[in-house]
Amino acid sequence: MPRIHFQLQLAELKDKLLAMAALAQQAVEASVDAYLQRDAKLCQYVSENETAINTAHRDLDEMAYELLAKEQPMAIDLRFILAVIKINGDLERIGDQSMSIAIRTRDVLQLAEVPLPVDFYAMGEYASRMIRTALQSLLDGDAHVADSVRLMDDEIDRMNRLAQKDLLELLQSTPGITAQALNAILISRNLERIADHATNIATDVIFWVRGADVRHALSLASD
Amino acid sequence: MPRIHFQLQLAELKDKLLAMAALAQQAVEASVDAYLQRDAKLCQYVSENETAINTAHRDLDEMAYELLAKEQPMAIDLRFILAVIKINGDLERIGDQSMSIAIRTRDVLQLAEVPLPVDFYAMGEYASRMIRTALQSLLDGDAHVADSVRLMDDEIDRMNRLAQKDLLELLQSTPGITAQALNAILISRNLERIADHATNIATDVIFWVRGADVRHALSLASD
Repeated sequence: MPRIHFQLQLAELKDKLLAMAALAQQAVEASVDAYLQRDAKLCQYVSENETAINTAHRDLDEMAYELLAKEQPMAIDLRFILAVIKINGDLERIGDQSMSIAIRTRDVLQLAEVPLPVDFYAMGEYASRMIRTALQSLLDGDAHVADSVRLMDDEIDRMNRLAQKDLLELLQSTPGITAQALNAILISRNLERIADHATNIATDVIFWVRGADVRHALSLASD
Repeated sequence: MPRIHFQLQLAELKDKLLAMAALAQQAVEASVDAYLQRDAKLCQYVSENETAINTAHRDLDEMAYELLAKEQPMAIDLRFILAVIKINGDLERIGDQSMSIAIRTRDVLQLAEVPLPVDFYAMGEYASRMIRTALQSLLDGDAHVADSVRLMDDEIDRMNRLAQKDLLELLQSTPGITAQALNAILISRNLERIADHATNIATDVIFWVRGADVRHALSLASD
């Protein structure tokens, strides 16, 4: 009976993590939209969403801690709870990066609109897809899907390097757009960092799944 | 007897964390020196140090996990081990940020040396002091010292904002120094992020100490 109770609490922990992930993903998408559409109201939304993320982060952390303290979980559950704590931290930092995009967007709204040689929409979509895929790998306990997120990271690194290069050239060749180009450089880096956090999440899923495999199937020579 | 063994393992965990912290702090200082002295060998050192940090990070994480799994620690020790896991993560990210400074420095070495209106030496020293103070608060279990680190964060934020402003003005007024100024902007941000991680460490110390206080001194009305 207490065991069933514990399983219910683990399920609740997973639900809370998914809610946290939804907030983080919304933050990424809203912040990129705010920048692309020059929408001050969306910036405000990101800011309120950030408060919600911080609250959800603390709640989830506290619940994970209570579970560890009271239930003394064994190997596979322990590894899962530790993965949740780390993933929770990465989601919170995704919120921070999105907030940073919203703050830059507020600066940009004071400046003239200029065309920039970067496809932020594609970068935002890609980063968002990485978060979604990382979460999917958690839900399915699928280390192969998690591995695919790590491969996706190369692509967004490439996008970011290209953006940095093109924006630097623009900065050097075109007077009067320094502030806009600089903000774009920093937003591109924010998106690349968001993708890094998605990669961290995937790594934690692998830690959970493969670690669990090794412990539950000791007859296997290796993993 | 097993209890004594567990306390020895906790002491070893703390030692490993201090070794990890030393590597992270060395990374910060070497990367700033490499940039200021334009020293390619120091960049190489930071790069090798980074490998050592990653190894130490994995070892420590694994040891913390084993302790949780085998010893089933109760409240205060559990909270300490969780704090160590989080602090370990922040130290690893301090290594990443330092590596990022070293990579930018390699770029800068290809460019002409130009005077820049930022005191990177002071920023590096300040960030390094924050890490040291945060670690000190862990060693002493002193939440007040940890609080002081959180206050220090305001000062480095101010330094970074000033650097961003001055470098942006320089970018706009002076042709031919775009790449140097841009690298400086990014290095200033790296240092500000390093300070953020030191602040995270202090927050984890507070979580450990105050949480422990509350649990060990339930007669106190509050903390």
